[in-house]
Amino acid sequence: MITVHHLKQSRSTRIIWLLEELGIEYTVKSYDRNPQTHLAPESLRKIHPLGKAPIVEIGEQVLVESAAIMEYVITTFAPDQLRPDSESDAYATYLQWMHFAEGSAMLPVLLDMFTADLNLNDAPVLYYAKKERDLDFAYIDKHLQRYEFFAGSQFTAADIMMMTVLLFATGRGMLEGYDAINEYVQRLSSREAFIVAAGYE
Amino acid sequence: MITVHHLKQSRSTRIIWLLEELGIEYTVKSYDRNPQTHLAPESLRKIHPLGKAPIVEIGEQVLVESAAIMEYVITTFAPDQLRPDSESDAYATYLQWMHFAEGSAMLPVLLDMFTADLNLNDAPVLYYAKKERDLDFAYIDKHLQRYEFFAGSQFTAADIMMMTVLLFATGRGMLEGYDAINEYVQRLSSREAFIVAAGYE
Repeated sequence: MITVHHLKQSRSTRIIWLLEELGIEYTVKSYDRNPQTHLAPESLRKIHPLGKAPIVEIGEQVLVESAAIMEYVITTFAPDQLRPDSESDAYATYLQWMHFAEGSAMLPVLLDMFTADLNLNDAPVLYYAKKERDLDFAYIDKHLQRYEFFAGSQFTAADIMMMTVLLFATGRGMLEGYDAINEYVQRLSSREAFIVAAGYE
Repeated sequence: MITVHHLKQSRSTRIIWLLEELGIEYTVKSYDRNPQTHLAPESLRKIHPLGKAPIVEIGEQVLVESAAIMEYVITTFAPDQLRPDSESDAYATYLQWMHFAEGSAMLPVLLDMFTADLNLNDAPVLYYAKKERDLDFAYIDKHLQRYEFFAGSQFTAADIMMMTVLLFATGRGMLEGYDAINEYVQRLSSREAFIVAAGYE
């Protein structure tokens, strides 16, 4: 049995979305953020010492890191789905976007949030973050002008990884003018599995 | 032929280290950071639009994201090395640390650097970053008290991913008192392949 410990407004929506796409049974335990601090509740620490979502229990295993959980679920339960064959041309592209989501794209988006309450309008860190976001979103937009999905013509787990970043950026008004990204976000938001996952918010 | 575009003091050392461990031939093109801004030179943009290291050319392919490049190199050239078998118990652990390095651990370390010149001694972002680092490093230290390497008893690419974060944290004085981490960093720093890679700095 798979149990998804789901923190609202977090990366854990990714896991529910993935499991819905694969048609794998699972249970969700939902947690609310602290209304003052917006942090995860202490109760998540009882499940895993890092206490942050997603945490997924698969049998005896307790796993963290959304991309790692997704790779593990695919490898274990559905090796031929939502991931290009490792000998295909699309495989390198898939890996790049799987890691790009949290390895590159999320940091400059989060820097905006972390510094929003500090009134640091001319701080070097904000200049850096804006420049990085401009680079990233232009690059992503160009990719989505050419390809239906991040790995090419096939919907994969890389789309689930990237959508979280793009939705977060949309919520902060960062994606105005990036037409291909906006069209993509709208298109993927209408997938049945996404709608079920979003329903847990 | 594999060409590693190596920016000094960056994550690209990971790729050289990996290729040395695997005994795969490669060429290195080294780039210096701008001495004033400490940013990557514009010339890297000619190789890949994002212009940040590592960028690796493998035949016709131009790849970014260190973890993605490492997974791709292993899958393509050495599928049985530096990664636990996908049916072993160590595989989930391997995946977790592969993604944890940039997905979780690096952000609170970098936040310290990004805000160092702002004199934000009591900003919420610094409190958050310190708390996250304390959690992460305590968790990592506990893991390394029990296991020789991140994935268990076998040296893997996850060690290369995590070492970059730990070395960066060491350089900023964040690892005092974490004895198991310090012993691990010292032990891995004596590996022949690491020494060759570090020689490109």
